[in-house]
Amino acid sequence: MVTSPVVNTYPLSNYTFGTKEPKMEKDTSVADRLARMKVKVHYWVQFSAPSVDGDSYSHVETWRLIYSFLCYMKEGMRTSVEGILLVQEHNHPHILLLQIGNTFCKLPGGRLKPGENEMEGLKRKLCSKLAANSPSFQPNWQIGECVATWWRPNFETAMYPYCPPHITKPKECKKLFLVHLSEREYFAVPKNLKLLAVPLFELYDNVQRYGPVISTIPQQLSRFQFNMVTS
Amino acid sequence: MVTSPVVNTYPLSNYTFGTKEPKMEKDTSVADRLARMKVKVHYWVQFSAPSVDGDSYSHVETWRLIYSFLCYMKEGMRTSVEGILLVQEHNHPHILLLQIGNTFCKLPGGRLKPGENEMEGLKRKLCSKLAANSPSFQPNWQIGECVATWWRPNFETAMYPYCPPHITKPKECKKLFLVHLSEREYFAVPKNLKLLAVPLFELYDNVQRYGPVISTIPQQLSRFQFNMVTS
Repeated sequence: MVTSPVVNTYPLSNYTFGTKEPKMEKDTSVADRLARMKVKVHYWVQFSAPSVDGDSYSHVETWRLIYSFLCYMKEGMRTSVEGILLVQEHNHPHILLLQIGNTFCKLPGGRLKPGENEMEGLKRKLCSKLAANSPSFQPNWQIGECVATWWRPNFETAMYPYCPPHITKPKECKKLFLVHLSEREYFAVPKNLKLLAVPLFELYDNVQRYGPVISTIPQQLSRFQFNMVTS
Repeated sequence: MVTSPVVNTYPLSNYTFGTKEPKMEKDTSVADRLARMKVKVHYWVQFSAPSVDGDSYSHVETWRLIYSFLCYMKEGMRTSVEGILLVQEHNHPHILLLQIGNTFCKLPGGRLKPGENEMEGLKRKLCSKLAANSPSFQPNWQIGECVATWWRPNFETAMYPYCPPHITKPKECKKLFLVHLSEREYFAVPKNLKLLAVPLFELYDNVQRYGPVISTIPQQLSRFQFNMVTS
């Protein structure tokens, strides 16, 4: 008989949350994003890129395409890793999400460096987003099961939970891993971000608010048995 | 480093499909369904249930509720098991679905008998839906990983990939298992059903046609690495 893997989840109140210096998100505004891409592209290309007047959305899209294309030429397929950190409240599993601004939510994680190991890269990203600066307060990140893989076939935002047919050179691969938290931990949240514990029932079927990747986490976790430890 | 489990998938053309006697689906029409439920309810209750004129949808819903309630009183939570059988075409994974009538698709599987083991029950259901009658032509069903669990909290059609908070007595639990097929098999499909090999890209994000359970299978399978065997 196949048994479902058991995941211990501890009450949200077991964890302590402090703050730390802001982690500037790379893309907090369209203007910032454009500026950052322009600098990089100018740095990479041998000739001077044409100057672009205004920051209209279509210009951003053009720059983004050039930028993504050059990144891909330079480093190949991007791999990103994200962590699913579970806590419980009212006997129901909740996921820790970082909120940027008022609406946009994301999982802690980020892009691997070229050649970086997935587990090490995810730990590095979790530390950068959620750990205190002091080495003695580092959470014990236990990276567990891969729960999903998403593919970006083109230089576009659309991602799919498979590499679409006829795509031989996908541009990004994003992997989601379960991160098993210890019974108690101290997290330090960058001052410009908010850490939210969002219940599975809020994520489920809520693609409008959370996007296709986060809104189907409840389905991906449904194969686990949650052991709600109350202590 | 955590590695993704590898699933061998073989070309659709490796498999042979015959037919066998029709398996009458219990609920091919609203009228059949109503009649079946009425007979059962009349059999169970000590007094004669009131006769219902006409087959309007609201009457069916009333009978369905009474029927489900009595089933639950009699047997407790229903457990059903379904199998995800993978083949490949054009280097992309496809799932075998049974089509009833012109639109409704379902995974092979069904309800367990009270106390029945999940693996044995799934094998029994797969044989009933897909195996030839001759014992020498039985496929070698290798039941693998549980990929999802869905809960029905009330006597309603809605299911969730978690047991919703405050629900202590869910009415149904449905488990989806990967079934690892051998390189070659012979399937016998009941004459009233059609067996379809549906690509993941067709299922993805297609809740209208396939419903919430089947349309999120691509996300649940995304953690696997598909080894497309061509032979």
